[in-house]
Amino acid sequence: MTTISEQDITVEKTQNSKLKDTDFNNLPFGKVFSDHMLISRYKEGSWSIPEVVPYQPITLDPSAKIFHYGQSVFEGMKAYKDDNDDIYLFRPLENCKRLNISSKRLAIPEIPESYFMEGLKKLLKVDQDWIPTTSGSALYIRPFVFASGNGFHASPANEYIFIIATAPSGAYFSGKVTVAIEEKYSRSANGGVGYAKAGGNYAGQFYPTQLAIDKGYNQVIWTDDTTHEYIEEAGAMNIFVRINDTLITAPTSDRILDGITRKSILEIAKKEGINVDVRRISVKEIVEAAKNGSLKEMFGSGTAAVISPISGFGYKNKDYTLPELDDSYANKLKTLITDIQYNRSEDPFNWRTKID
Amino acid sequence: MTTISEQDITVEKTQNSKLKDTDFNNLPFGKVFSDHMLISRYKEGSWSIPEVVPYQPITLDPSAKIFHYGQSVFEGMKAYKDDNDDIYLFRPLENCKRLNISSKRLAIPEIPESYFMEGLKKLLKVDQDWIPTTSGSALYIRPFVFASGNGFHASPANEYIFIIATAPSGAYFSGKVTVAIEEKYSRSANGGVGYAKAGGNYAGQFYPTQLAIDKGYNQVIWTDDTTHEYIEEAGAMNIFVRINDTLITAPTSDRILDGITRKSILEIAKKEGINVDVRRISVKEIVEAAKNGSLKEMFGSGTAAVISPISGFGYKNKDYTLPELDDSYANKLKTLITDIQYNRSEDPFNWRTKID
Ligand SMILES: Cc1ncc(COP(=O)(O)O)c(C=O)c1O
Ligand SMILES: Cc1ncc(COP(=O)(O)O)c(C=O)c1O
Repeated sequence: MTTISEQDITVEKTQNSKLKDTDFNNLPFGKVFSDHMLISRYKEGSWSIPEVVPYQPITLDPSAKIFHYGQSVFEGMKAYKDDNDDIYLFRPLENCKRLNISSKRLAIPEIPESYFMEGLKKLLKVDQDWIPTTSGSALYIRPFVFASGNGFHASPANEYIFIIATAPSGAYFSGKVTVAIEEKYSRSANGGVGYAKAGGNYAGQFYPTQLAIDKGYNQVIWTDDTTHEYIEEAGAMNIFVRINDTLITAPTSDRILDGITRKSILEIAKKEGINVDVRRISVKEIVEAAKNGSLKEMFGSGTAAVISPISGFGYKNKDYTLPELDDSYANKLKTLITDIQYNRSEDPFNWRTKID
Repeated sequence: MTTISEQDITVEKTQNSKLKDTDFNNLPFGKVFSDHMLISRYKEGSWSIPEVVPYQPITLDPSAKIFHYGQSVFEGMKAYKDDNDDIYLFRPLENCKRLNISSKRLAIPEIPESYFMEGLKKLLKVDQDWIPTTSGSALYIRPFVFASGNGFHASPANEYIFIIATAPSGAYFSGKVTVAIEEKYSRSANGGVGYAKAGGNYAGQFYPTQLAIDKGYNQVIWTDDTTHEYIEEAGAMNIFVRINDTLITAPTSDRILDGITRKSILEIAKKEGINVDVRRISVKEIVEAAKNGSLKEMFGSGTAAVISPISGFGYKNKDYTLPELDDSYANKLKTLITDIQYNRSEDPFNWRTKID
C-alpha cells in the first residue's frame, strides 16, 4: 500500500502528558519535545503504515548502521498557529520531496508522499496544543530517517526507521549574528552530498564552527572547497548579500542545500520589485563592497533561523561591520514571509497548507 | 581519572552465551557478534571507566544527535590467534590514535588511551573463544563513538557513548575485485572530513557504489573532487598501483584515510627492496600503462580487506583487465603482512601486541 489517507493512521495516546509542565513563555530551540511522534519502519522492502505513538526511546543493536556509517537524512519544518488557533504548514510538500532527494543520495529507501503528509497532519492534530502562540515561536518539526539494520559492513542497511518528532521552539539565534568566512575547512565536495540534508554534513561542520565561535563569531560561511574564493551557505542557512540595491545569493549546486526559505525569499523579493541576482559571489567582491560602502546587508535564511541579519563578518584576520539600515531588505522580507506563514496576510503564492 | 589499568575494568558476564550456536567454519564478515562488548559513557565532561558487559541493545531518545547530525567515528581492527592459541593485535595504538584524530575533527571528546587499550585487552580476554582460527578468519574489532546527547540543534552533543564490539569474521571480499574509477561523484572535500573515519563518509559512498555495482563492478575508486583526474582511495581500502616494478600509492591528505595497512605495506615493501613511490597518480597514467602493458597490478589495502588484488577497472565506458602474475607484489606482501599478524614470522617492525 503506497497511498494512504489520514484514517489509516492509528493513534496511541500518551498516559503522561508533559504539556502542563511546559513553559511556553520561555521556549528554547529544539529541546522540549511534544507528547507524540509518528513512526514507520522499513523492513523487507516496504515501509509500515505510520503510527502516532507516545514520544519514546528507540532501542537498537550496537551494530545498527546508523552508529557506524552515518546513513541518515532529516528535514526541518514548522507548524504555525494564527489568532484563531488555526494551524498552518509552509510548503510542506517541498520538505517531503527534499527528504526523498536526500534519501536517494544516501541510498535510503524513499518514503511514500502520503505516509509523510498524512502522517504529519495526523500528528499535528494529536499534538495541536503543543503549537506555541507566543510571538516568534512555532512548533519545530523534525522528520528524519536512519539506518536501523545491522552489520559491520560498509554497505546500505536493510532496515530503516522514519520518525517525525516535534518541539515547540523559540528563536534559533538570540541577538545579532556575526560570521567567519571560511578559509581552510569545507562543508562539501563537488559530487558529494552537500545538497542533501544528510546527517554527516552537519557533524563535519561542528569543529570548524567551534573554532569560529572561539574567535567570537556565531557561524561559519562556507566557501567552495577548491578555491575558498566563493561563498556558498552557512551551517543551517542559505546566505543573501545586498550590494547597493541588488540582492544576491549563490546558485544551488550539488554542494548547497536548496533551501525552501531561500527560494521563497527570491520569489517574494521579485514580487516586491527588488532586484535579485542568483550568481556566484566572491569573497573579494564582498570585502571590496564592505570597504567602499556598497555592501548594505547580509542575512541568512532558513526554517529554523527564519531571516537572520548578519551584523559583521571576519575574513583573513580582519573584521568588517555591516551598517544598520532602517529600511533593510532583511526586515521587510522577514515580515512578508512570516505574515504568510502565520496567516497574517494573503497567500499570493499558495504556500500555506491549513491543517483541518 | 584518565589512566586506568586492566583491573579497573569490571566484567559482567552474559548468562546466554551464543558461542555454541556459532558456525566458525562459515563466517560472514561482521554479521555475527561476540558475547560481550566494552562500553564507556561521556557525561558532564568525562568518560566513565569502561566496563565489559553482555552485548546488548542501546536505548536512545529520538532526539539523540547521532540520528540527526551524523556525529560518529569508528575504527576497524582485528585480533589474530596463532597455532598456540595466543592472541595478537596489529599496531593497536595506531587505531586508538586515529580514533582520537577522527573524534577531534568531528568535535567528539577524545577517549583516554588507557580506556581504549586496557578496555580492549580485557574484552578480548573475556571473549577469547570468539577469535576464529580457521584460515583467513580473524576477530574483527569495531571501536566506535557516537553522540547520544539530545536536541534538534545542529551543534555538538553533550553526551557520547564509546563501545568496542567484536565479530568473528571471514573474508571481506569473496573472489576477484573489479573497480570503477569515479568520474562524477566524490568521497571527500579539500578541508573536509575525508581523513577521519567519520560515519558520514561511508553513507555518502553507498549510492555511487551501488551505481557501480549495477554496472558489474565491486567497488569505486574515488578521484579528487576538483578534477577527477587523480585516484585517491576506495570505499574501505587504500589503493596501490604497480607500474613496471614500481609500487605507487597516493600520498595521504585531508581527503584520504591514513590507512594502517597502507603504511605497513610501504614499510614491508621497502624492506623487501621493492621500489615504492608515494605520489599523485593520474587516471591518464593508469589508462596509458594499461594500454602499453606496463600496468602490472592494482590492489587495495585495509584491515577488513587485507590485500585485495584488483582484476580490472572501468573508466569512461571502457574496461581494462589486469594481467595475472605468478610473482605478484600483492601475494608476496599479503603473505608477509599476514605472517606478522598471525605470528607466523618474526616481527621486525615491532607491530604485534600479545594479549596476556
Ligand atoms: C545546510 C542548510 N542550508 C540551508 C538551510 C535552509 O533551508 P530551509 O530554508 O529549507 O530551511 C538549512 C536548513 O534547513 C540547512 O541545513
Ligand atoms: C576509507 C578507508 N580507507 C582506507 C582504509 C584502510 O585503513 P586500514 O588499513 O587502517 O584498515 C579504511 C579502512 O579502515 C577506510 O575506511
